[in-house]
Amino acid sequence: MSGYALPIKRLIQELSRLPGIGEKTASRLATHILRVPEEDARRLAESILDVKRKIRICSACFNLAEGDLCEVCNDASRDRGIICVVEEPDSLIALEESGEYRGVYHVLHGALSPLDGIGPEQLRIRELMERVAVHPVEEVIVATNPSVAGETTALLISKLLKERGIKVSRIALGIPMGGDLKYADRMTLAKCLEFRRGV
Amino acid sequence: MSGYALPIKRLIQELSRLPGIGEKTASRLATHILRVPEEDARRLAESILDVKRKIRICSACFNLAEGDLCEVCNDASRDRGIICVVEEPDSLIALEESGEYRGVYHVLHGALSPLDGIGPEQLRIRELMERVAVHPVEEVIVATNPSVAGETTALLISKLLKERGIKVSRIALGIPMGGDLKYADRMTLAKCLEFRRGV
Repeated sequence: MSGYALPIKRLIQELSRLPGIGEKTASRLATHILRVPEEDARRLAESILDVKRKIRICSACFNLAEGDLCEVCNDASRDRGIICVVEEPDSLIALEESGEYRGVYHVLHGALSPLDGIGPEQLRIRELMERVAVHPVEEVIVATNPSVAGETTALLISKLLKERGIKVSRIALGIPMGGDLKYADRMTLAKCLEFRRGV
Repeated sequence: MSGYALPIKRLIQELSRLPGIGEKTASRLATHILRVPEEDARRLAESILDVKRKIRICSACFNLAEGDLCEVCNDASRDRGIICVVEEPDSLIALEESGEYRGVYHVLHGALSPLDGIGPEQLRIRELMERVAVHPVEEVIVATNPSVAGETTALLISKLLKERGIKVSRIALGIPMGGDLKYADRMTLAKCLEFRRGV
């Protein structure tokens, strides 16, 4: 980074710390920031600070929220009788973008991974049990990721909920839309057969 | 972007305005910023503001600078007898990174492009002429880009300098290192022949 003035070097350094941003991209972004009106740069900087200052965890579902409750929990039209359990807020966003789901969520903030020291106490599982005890629900959809950690978590949650007589379902695992069986891995093929349904 | 709290939406929007950053990447970056310690986010935001507040134009060569003079002009070990003329500060940085050049620079901040209303008055050409009049130099290397605008600019600058009896050279245009003749365009092939040298 020779030749750059110190504040530019520092900006490039800070930008390079972002995931997927290498030094080349960082200096391209820095050059861009140097060129835009000061107002634009200030808006970007402030939105970074704002997100840290204002974002909290929803007291009902543990999604990211601006106030006490998140957008979904604040929406009176959502069906509180169905809870969809996800690992991270990212999964919630992805499901919201599909536009297919009208229930509410419960964000675990992780998945069981004993080797990383993540047991049931590190996740929001106790809070889920308390929630369904206080407000009875028709169904809980377990939408953890189809990974080893996600499957283990799904198993535990299903067991705990079934013990309380609550209907539990798991999202379908199978061939993605536009996918091709010849490129699918063995586990996915096994799942697409297991989750088959009558037509 | 449904499901996101407002400050996150705003950050994603601001990040998407950066070149090469789409909405997917922007939300990945926003999620990352949400996760890092507040201190890290503050450093990033401040480096953005700093770059706008502190960066000025070097009064000698028009490179980006923190103070009155840029890093290169401030460096006493640089050879002031050779000036390398570039279009943009990016070119200067690229040349500095090669580590091959020990002279000083002159940044034009653009190239001639009459259709875009960029004539000689919009570039730092007058300042270059004044500079070589006050401090005589041995040589001026014209390192504008090998594009139509860059070549036109190189021609004009060469003409003006030669009229004043100053030695002018042009960077070599040819096949890049690691390149292959069969993939080179006709213009590059013509240039690599024109710029050939005895071995």
